[in-house]
This record gives sequence, structure tokens and C-alpha cells, in this order.
Amino acid sequence: MARSMVVAAAQMGPIARQDSRKQVVARLIALLQEAAARGAELVVFPELTLTTFFPRWHLTDSAEIDAFFEREMPGPETLPLFEEAKRLQVGFYLGYAELAVEEGRTRRYNTAILVDRAGAIVGKYRKVHLPGWDRPQPDLQAQHLEKYYFEPGNYGFRVWKTMGATIGMCICNDRRWPETYRVMALKGAEMILVGYNTPDDHTGSFDFDSLTLFHNQLSLQAGAYQNSTWVVATAKAGLEEGSNLIGQSMIVAPSGQIAAMATSTEDEVVVAKCNLDMATLYRKTIFDFARHREPDHYRLIVETRGPIAGAENET
Amino acid sequence: MARSMVVAAAQMGPIARQDSRKQVVARLIALLQEAAARGAELVVFPELTLTTFFPRWHLTDSAEIDAFFEREMPGPETLPLFEEAKRLQVGFYLGYAELAVEEGRTRRYNTAILVDRAGAIVGKYRKVHLPGWDRPQPDLQAQHLEKYYFEPGNYGFRVWKTMGATIGMCICNDRRWPETYRVMALKGAEMILVGYNTPDDHTGSFDFDSLTLFHNQLSLQAGAYQNSTWVVATAKAGLEEGSNLIGQSMIVAPSGQIAAMATSTEDEVVVAKCNLDMATLYRKTIFDFARHREPDHYRLIVETRGPIAGAENET
Repeated sequence: MARSMVVAAAQMGPIARQDSRKQVVARLIALLQEAAARGAELVVFPELTLTTFFPRWHLTDSAEIDAFFEREMPGPETLPLFEEAKRLQVGFYLGYAELAVEEGRTRRYNTAILVDRAGAIVGKYRKVHLPGWDRPQPDLQAQHLEKYYFEPGNYGFRVWKTMGATIGMCICNDRRWPETYRVMALKGAEMILVGYNTPDDHTGSFDFDSLTLFHNQLSLQAGAYQNSTWVVATAKAGLEEGSNLIGQSMIVAPSGQIAAMATSTEDEVVVAKCNLDMATLYRKTIFDFARHREPDHYRLIVETRGPIAGAENET
Repeated sequence: MARSMVVAAAQMGPIARQDSRKQVVARLIALLQEAAARGAELVVFPELTLTTFFPRWHLTDSAEIDAFFEREMPGPETLPLFEEAKRLQVGFYLGYAELAVEEGRTRRYNTAILVDRAGAIVGKYRKVHLPGWDRPQPDLQAQHLEKYYFEPGNYGFRVWKTMGATIGMCICNDRRWPETYRVMALKGAEMILVGYNTPDDHTGSFDFDSLTLFHNQLSLQAGAYQNSTWVVATAKAGLEEGSNLIGQSMIVAPSGQIAAMATSTEDEVVVAKCNLDMATLYRKTIFDFARHREPDHYRLIVETRGPIAGAENET
């Protein structure tokens, strides 16, 4: 009999700057309960789930900045979510801004955790691909300052054997980079979880920004298909502090097919029963990595960060 | 003013086993003339353009096999195509089965060449990702024996500065592997050319095979978008010797948008004017490789061919 897991993407509508953690956690618990009632065994919440998407602002007061970060997980305000998930025996993925003291230095990461059905944190991921800029861009109407607030994740891409599956995590912009999925697939990922906050005004160019929904879908479907893995992607969505965040939370099969998709930009749960053995056909034929990959010809992927000059064969 | 190039995908309908090179080349010339009349400066023909797609059969007679291969390019039968292209001042990409003697040994490759507007061969590529099997599969109704007929290409992924652009080449199954596009993008590719023969019965599983058109489109759009490059993809299509080959030849923009797509499975030319500067916006923002890529975390991509065991974090 095929192994399967019922999974939910628990999309959140906007969070105002003034909303308290308590208000947000109450919404998360309501989403969790709805997902559990619909059979979900694992619930995926968005990136930076506990507050408004603050990287749109250039804040300089450190107390003001720190207020968006968690020093412990769970803390007193998030503990009720852990308790309710444990009571319902539902695992979850939760994104949040993490303030850690490591090697004697305060560090800020864009982080996600994986919590099992017993309420234990079994995995942690820190976002590798930080989009945007490390300082305000005077030419851009909308700012996106993740490189200012966070440092790149230091764990790389990992997978965990938990809840009957091999599960990987990434966050938001990671999903546009094929390397993200590939590393986790080579580690055996059967399901990749990703939360996101994606504004539709990233560049200020309408030709580009009007394709934001399409690019979201394309990246997720390609990542799932090319790596024969389930992808569960959850948005924080809607008009948040004057910025429109796309919704389109979705559960994508190893075939690249969309098994479920949110149709609002509000709090919304979508659920799919994921056949974890579905990938087998792909991994034995067209994507049989061991038979078909040719790593000797991929070396440039790790040998350079940006494009190299003079690589063209002049003719 | 934006740099631009008018490009054609010159799809071919089926080629019967009994069709002569002369017949095929006459069709290629007709497609070339139509493309040139519609303004094309570069025409992309399919993979293994000169014969039927013979890897569907398990042939053992070497004379019979060699008859599908070219020993020289151009040879007497293909020279008229080169001459007409030169007369029309149109460059082209042509896929063919190549028989080469290298290091004292006969070698067979699935090859494509790039010919400039003066009729000179300026680039050669040999297919890296050979799909299918190296021996007949008794469980499969349809055979796909590229690993039996060819050895993997030994040039890797290259780009050429020619005809006013930086152009890369790959072939068929290469387009499903994100590494293909990435290596060429890191070498500065602005346009990637790919010919293909894609049967719709690869696995014999309807769940998989019925998605063949979708997977073609998904792979090409993702490759273009994630690498900010034009992709020109051309099929050999239609019912060929009892096997259905998909069409859907297309020209995809760096945005992932489809600029042109064939709607038949016959000989058909589709043309698009490609703005070669369109990628700039993407390469300066979301896909600014030098600012955003994190190669330290990609190492597994080149360190292993297939999935590695024991990479999961047990919990």
C-alpha cells in the first residue's frame, strides 16, 4: 500500500504592524484546528509568520527591530500553538525571525522550524537565499531589505526523517533557485516545505511585477517535477501595510501537478493527501539521478558565484 | 536601442525510416526559406534532424546503425542546406547523429552544430544527458535506447559569441536538468537552443506519459526564467514509425513567457523577435547571481551523481 500523508498549507492573510503575537497565534491555532479537522497530519505556515513583513521598511532603532524577532522558540506567546498541535497530534512548519547569540555575537536569521506530532522541534532551517538589498534603494518605490536584517543561513539545505517521510525545508526566495531543491533531493527529500512573503512590487517594473504569480507557480512546479518531490508552499498574503503580497499557496506533486491551491489572499487552509510513493516512477525513469546525472559537467555551479567573464568561445 | 534578433523554431513533422537525406534536406530548405521570408536571422532545427528517431529500435547490424550517422558535416547531402542558408544569410542550429574517430576509436554522439550567417560552423555540442537505457527493457512496450547508441558528450555546456549574441546549445533531455541552463548562464548565455524528439510513451505509465506536453513546457519555461535567458526549442513531431512525438516547439523569453509556440505536429515555423536586453532587469534584481547565489551550499550537486544514503537527520 502506498505511503501517504495528509498535508495542509495554512495561508495567512495580512498581519498589521500593530497586531500582537497573541492575536497572530490565535489565528494560527484556528488554522491548525481547521487543518486537523480536515485530516491534516502536517501543517505548513508561512515565512515570518508571527509579525508583519517588516523588511519592507528601513528601521534603524534596534529595540524597534528586535521586537520583530524571537529569542526563544517556543516562547510564552507561541507556546499555546505548540500545545494545541501536540493535543491534535499535528506536526507543523513555522517561519519566524530568529535572534540568536552564537560565538559571542548576536545574529539574526530568517528561520523555519519543523515540529513533530509530539510537539518537539525536530529540525531548523535558516534561509540561505536572502533577496533584496542590504541598504535602502533610492530608485525603488518599494524596499526589500532582507540582506539588511538577516545574515544568510549557516546550515545549508537539510532533510529530516520524521513523521513517516523525509522532509526538507526552505524559505521564500530559496524556491526560485534550482540548487535549493537539488541538494535536498540528493539527500533523499520526499517533501519540501516552504513559506513565503512575496510582494508584487519587487522591481517597480510592471513587465516584471505583473508576472509575480506566474513566477511563483513556475518555480514551485519546476522544483517539484525536476526533483520528484512534493512541495508544500504557503504564503502570507493580501494587502499588508500598503503592500500587496501574493497568495497562491499550493501543494505540488512530484509530477509538477498542482494538487491544491488557495484561491484567496486571506487566512485559508488547503489540504491534499500526498502519496509519498508517487515519486518512484519518476526516480526510476527520467529522473534516475544515478543513471543520468553528469556532475563532471556541473562544476561551474559551485566554482563561481556570479557569471564568469571570457567563457564564451569567440568565433 | 535594445539589441534584438528574429529567431525561428523550425519544427519538423515525422520522418519515415525510408526517407532519404535528400528528401529531408529539401524539407529543411523549405523551412529555412519560410523562416527567412518572415525575417528570421537564426533558425533552430530539431535533434537528430536528418533521419527518423532510430533509438526507438534495437538495431544490431553495424552497417544498418551507421546509416543513421553522419561522418562529415556538411556532407554532400547536407551541403545544399548550408549553401541556401549562406545565400539567405541565416544562421542555424542542426542536430544529427555524429560518427567520429577520436583517439583511434570510433565514437557516436548525439550532436548539434551552430552555423553562422556566413555558412561557417562556429560551435558544436554533444548531448550530455542521454535518456533511456543502454539495452532493451523487456518490461517496456516502447524502447528508448540512446545510451546504447551514443556516449555522453565530452564538451560539456558551452556558449559562443556569434551573430550579435551569446548563444548556448543543448539537446532534448538536457532541457529537463536545471544544471544544463545554469552552467551556460554562468558563462553568459543570452539564448539557449535545443532540439528534441520526445515520444509520449516513455514509461508506459499513463499517469506519467499523459503529462509529456506539460513537462516539456514546464522545463523550458523554468530554464528560461531561472537563468534569465531566451530558450528556443524545436521538436521533431507527429506520428513517426508508429511512435507519437510531441510538438509544442516554442520560443521562451527570459521572463518565462512563451513568445511563440507551434500548434501542429507537422513541419511548421514559428518566429519571434527576441529582445536580447530583456534579461537585464532580471539579472540586476531577483537573479543577480553575484549578489544572491550561495555556492558553498550547492556542493553536493557536483559531489555525487545519485542520491546519497544516510544524509537525513534522524530525529
